[in-house]
Amino acid sequence: MGTVVTTIDRASADTVNAFGEIGVATVHEAQGRTGLMASYMRPVWKGVRVAGSAVTVSLPPGDNWMIHVAVEQCRDGDVMVVAPTSPCEDGYFGDLLAGSCMARGIRALIIDAGVRDTADLTSMKFPVWSKAIYSQGTVKETLGDVNLPLVCAGALVNPGDVIVADEDGVVVVPRASADKVLKASRDREANEASKRKRLNAGELGLDIYSMRERLKEKGLVYVDRLPAK
Amino acid sequence: MGTVVTTIDRASADTVNAFGEIGVATVHEAQGRTGLMASYMRPVWKGVRVAGSAVTVSLPPGDNWMIHVAVEQCRDGDVMVVAPTSPCEDGYFGDLLAGSCMARGIRALIIDAGVRDTADLTSMKFPVWSKAIYSQGTVKETLGDVNLPLVCAGALVNPGDVIVADEDGVVVVPRASADKVLKASRDREANEASKRKRLNAGELGLDIYSMRERLKEKGLVYVDRLPAK
Amino acid sequence: MGTVVTTIDRASADTVNAFGEIGVATVHEAQGRTGLMASYMRPVWKGVRVAGSAVTVSLPPGDNWMIHVAVEQCRDGDVMVVAPTSPCEDGYFGDLLAGSCMARGIRALIIDAGVRDTADLTSMKFPVWSKAIYSQGTVKETLGDVNLPLVCAGALVNPGDVIVADEDGVVVVPRASADKVLKASRDREANEASKRKRLNAGELGLDIYSMRERLKEKGLVYVDRLPAK
Amino acid sequence: MGTVVTTIDRASADTVNAFGEIGVATVHEAQGRTGLMASYMRPVWKGVRVAGSAVTVSLPPGDNWMIHVAVEQCRDGDVMVVAPTSPCEDGYFGDLLAGSCMARGIRALIIDAGVRDTADLTSMKFPVWSKAIYSQGTVKETLGDVNLPLVCAGALVNPGDVIVADEDGVVVVPRASADKVLKASRDREANEASKRKRLNAGELGLDIYSMRERLKEKGLVYVDRLPAK
Amino acid sequence: MGTVVTTIDRASADTVNAFGEIGVATVHEAQGRTGLMASYMRPVWKGVRVAGSAVTVSLPPGDNWMIHVAVEQCRDGDVMVVAPTSPCEDGYFGDLLAGSCMARGIRALIIDAGVRDTADLTSMKFPVWSKAIYSQGTVKETLGDVNLPLVCAGALVNPGDVIVADEDGVVVVPRASADKVLKASRDREANEASKRKRLNAGELGLDIYSMRERLKEKGLVYVDRLPAK
Amino acid sequence: MGTVVTTIDRASADTVNAFGEIGVATVHEAQGRTGLMASYMRPVWKGVRVAGSAVTVSLPPGDNWMIHVAVEQCRDGDVMVVAPTSPCEDGYFGDLLAGSCMARGIRALIIDAGVRDTADLTSMKFPVWSKAIYSQGTVKETLGDVNLPLVCAGALVNPGDVIVADEDGVVVVPRASADKVLKASRDREANEASKRKRLNAGELGLDIYSMRERLKEKGLVYVDRLPAK
Repeated sequence: MGTVVTTIDRASADTVNAFGEIGVATVHEAQGRTGLMASYMRPVWKGVRVAGSAVTVSLPPGDNWMIHVAVEQCRDGDVMVVAPTSPCEDGYFGDLLAGSCMARGIRALIIDAGVRDTADLTSMKFPVWSKAIYSQGTVKETLGDVNLPLVCAGALVNPGDVIVADEDGVVVVPRASADKVLKASRDREANEASKRKRLNAGELGLDIYSMRERLKEKGLVYVDRLPAK
Repeated sequence: MGTVVTTIDRASADTVNAFGEIGVATVHEAQGRTGLMASYMRPVWKGVRVAGSAVTVSLPPGDNWMIHVAVEQCRDGDVMVVAPTSPCEDGYFGDLLAGSCMARGIRALIIDAGVRDTADLTSMKFPVWSKAIYSQGTVKETLGDVNLPLVCAGALVNPGDVIVADEDGVVVVPRASADKVLKASRDREANEASKRKRLNAGELGLDIYSMRERLKEKGLVYVDRLPAK
Repeated sequence: MGTVVTTIDRASADTVNAFGEIGVATVHEAQGRTGLMASYMRPVWKGVRVAGSAVTVSLPPGDNWMIHVAVEQCRDGDVMVVAPTSPCEDGYFGDLLAGSCMARGIRALIIDAGVRDTADLTSMKFPVWSKAIYSQGTVKETLGDVNLPLVCAGALVNPGDVIVADEDGVVVVPRASADKVLKASRDREANEASKRKRLNAGELGLDIYSMRERLKEKGLVYVDRLPAK
Repeated sequence: MGTVVTTIDRASADTVNAFGEIGVATVHEAQGRTGLMASYMRPVWKGVRVAGSAVTVSLPPGDNWMIHVAVEQCRDGDVMVVAPTSPCEDGYFGDLLAGSCMARGIRALIIDAGVRDTADLTSMKFPVWSKAIYSQGTVKETLGDVNLPLVCAGALVNPGDVIVADEDGVVVVPRASADKVLKASRDREANEASKRKRLNAGELGLDIYSMRERLKEKGLVYVDRLPAK
Repeated sequence: MGTVVTTIDRASADTVNAFGEIGVATVHEAQGRTGLMASYMRPVWKGVRVAGSAVTVSLPPGDNWMIHVAVEQCRDGDVMVVAPTSPCEDGYFGDLLAGSCMARGIRALIIDAGVRDTADLTSMKFPVWSKAIYSQGTVKETLGDVNLPLVCAGALVNPGDVIVADEDGVVVVPRASADKVLKASRDREANEASKRKRLNAGELGLDIYSMRERLKEKGLVYVDRLPAK
Repeated sequence: MGTVVTTIDRASADTVNAFGEIGVATVHEAQGRTGLMASYMRPVWKGVRVAGSAVTVSLPPGDNWMIHVAVEQCRDGDVMVVAPTSPCEDGYFGDLLAGSCMARGIRALIIDAGVRDTADLTSMKFPVWSKAIYSQGTVKETLGDVNLPLVCAGALVNPGDVIVADEDGVVVVPRASADKVLKASRDREANEASKRKRLNAGELGLDIYSMRERLKEKGLVYVDRLPAK
């Protein structure tokens, strides 16, 4: 404990920004259904989608000191990813830190813990995904780490990975595969667009995806009515 | 596993539609405080009340194949009720399936699991009540059943039962008793209307419901102040 | 069980009302990080902050009789604080009781259980913080207590304590220390205002709070890059 | 609420007793992976397997009156299945009721709630599967139902169904299919015995179940080492 | 934060010790169904019942420093009651502290958090009731309080209160009412003994408690068989 | 999905085996309080400590096919570490697979999901740490991965890492640092032995660890009695 890595590699700004137009579900599918954080990670307010480069913060339960340290390590376009070393819902982050983050160009906070001042976070339009909303105060006594790999809400995050978050939750794209996943995401979107049109027009998925034959092989049986017991 | 029942009995359209104007709490009371799904079933978006006939879907954890099968079995005015065979929060349903459902006249999805593309579901105005919001993808490998009785979020649902859902949650009305419950619901609403007026005017429930005598019999004691410890 | 205390001491109206302009997180900090209810206490609707004097209600699981008893004990400016004697999410409270409370001048309900008719509660603008939203009906058979001390969502509440609630949750201020906590809250707000300005302008918390020296003493190490594994 | 059905059909004693020698997992598989109660249903003490005919009890949260009513409806070889009408962990059942049940020949209690006096239940050797261990007392004020169908821990139970419980949990076998499921369970056990011998001797499931070909078709790839990142 | 009260009043040793022979459920009933800690408080090992005088410890999440401070404040016959200021499952306590406690005559630990070295705690026969078993280490950086009132697992504990714990959980008896509750507990035990004998002999609770008349008044209906649907 | 890595590096047998004599809490401390799995990972039976080399298995919810694939990749002294791609409590593993594992020399199963046949697992003495005990059956339809890095119960596991498990839970030691952590663990044990002796003899931690001065600096205050409120 107590290490700050000051230089990390990020994906290109173009790549990162392009993820800002793609939904979390699409990205997750495009990289082989990996990288999702747990379903308890919810947006404090809705109506925004964010993509940025991860600056990771590991800190103790009930101690937010390292968030102050981490702000300095962030630059425009980053997303701060915070995980306590054991489960904790304390309110590590509020409107003052949000102002500091916004001044630094930080795009969002992803925290596997609690936040507070949520009415302010909403009016300031600073995007936050958290495990809890809780006013419980924290101390500044114990060190943690900035920009070491960590597990946040069940997902491995390396510093510089691309974080994409929307109303569905949060997904992590490893930096090294960001371009490949971006392309796969766009391909998936294009493919879905044609499917969407047909489904909206009333065609059945059973036909569009040619499922009938395989369902029959698996043994699916259609009966008119249930026999009386 | 692997049975689709193609013909089910539904309550009359008039009956079903009439439930669309009554709150879940009222319906639940009117049928003797039965039929409620668990409190974790929450609307993806608020501001809508739905009533429809249940088409039931039982499927495995992490496998949404049977939803495609079930869409074909639905008709205008139905509500799809989906329950996995063991607890699962995966994202079984998203905007593509919602489009397919809307084309079919399906009024809502009730799912004891997760959904995704929730920003789209909201803008499409397709009503969904779910246990979770989660992007986790599903496969299409294992059969389940359509239109067999199932337990969804703790409530027994038979195909063709009336499903009523609003911001308070979801309640199931057995088809056979739908007309009786509808009448009882309306009676309750009428009765509540007169009570509401008096309560809003400042009369106490203690007096309106004549509770004072019975409270006294049970032993309720009024004291001016707590004695010092 | 079965005691109603009819006379309780409250903080002055000026003091109570002044808390209505201060956030829960600030109050919690100002009184030494005490008095918070659990993070699961969430507002039924957002956009309101409330402060009032606690009237406490202890009642059995699944039985809301004592709420009717308690309404009579409330006066303008009170907040009703309800806790079941064992964990329960039933819908103890709905639109009828809300109308009764509003007629009485009750400012909010804080309940470590469930409520229902939440669309109505929202349109009536009656503020409620609850553990759950659940239509499950309750009975009126068993007595409880009004205006005895109780534990609600993990926080001790004495009758007449000041309750402050906003989107972050609920905090309890002991009546005897209300004035002192009010002053400390205002001091804290004033102090935060100057900090906020500097943080928003891009100054770092590390510098504003003079953290660098102490971090160094604790052993914080900055490295350029992680060594290859 | 408030109905006691006094005559129910049970499976034959031979059939019921035969289930007492078969594990819950086997029975669950033998009836097509249905009928399991939730994983939170745990034995108060271990080392016993029970099978019996269900007498069902639906009762309110925090009120155990109907258990006394239900004891009279039980006969030798029955299992009492208790579910509250909304989630509750109160201690509905203790050593006095256990003594009463044992005098009646009741084989076990299955309760989707709490029990108490667990040291006594253990020394008396009365088998109990419950959601919780909790001393919280209950009242006797409100009616419920005996021998109506109910949902207990997520499983539908009709009076007279066969209940099988062991250290793995609890499974419900519909009365009408009890003989068929018993036979299928025994067949499964016989089949497993031969497999167990081979597996214990070191043969691989991959070979015993001829999985290699199908895994290959699905696309499973063996690589010597992970490529360096 | 940061206060240690060195002198507290305790109930007499005779009274405290007498509680060691009475079950938690009985004590809870004898004091009007109050004082129970939450059902998640479980013994690390079974087969022991403990009664002692509470020494209370409030401390931060992830910081066990105050336990060392508290040991000095304990004397023979005490029970240490520990609650973090926000929910935490870290392993605050292990075999070294247990040895220290035993040397001091401390009878048990009650902790609304986690413990570790549980195999050692078991072989040392030091009784512990905890929320979790978890090896996660804690720091020694932040002060808390010893012998101030606190809420532990939902129950209010004042220093010097009598703590009774067994396999069913933990109950708090206020010091001032300890003698009265002790007497009521013994009366209850005596009363139960006669009831137990009759129940074990096959008499029904319906008759022993004369319930039939009241059930009838409430409207309980016996029917031979359910009508076919 | 669908990759099996057949060659992994393991720590030396001597190193791995040496960890079998050290407690999880000690190992966790010795590597800087890292590597712990979540507190919900509990042993199916108690009284055993295990250390072995991780073979990792990632598989879908409700599908245990890859466990059969993984058995072949294990060798004497390995521990199988299984994590589903989304939360699932199904019973992936029972007595047949346990027999297969034991024939292969596999020392234990660590699974972030459910297991069944737990009475058999206990009598066979095959050690298992799991999230749940649940009979729910699984299918064999969808591929996963063997020997890729994964997150299990919140901890990152690379194939070949050392897994240590006891009654306190499960900790992961990265292969590369195994020797260093082993030495640090032994040093810690030696250091604790001397402390244990003094604590057991009644010396206070306050003195042994020289805490009094630092507590005073932090502001700890001793008062004789609480002032009356």
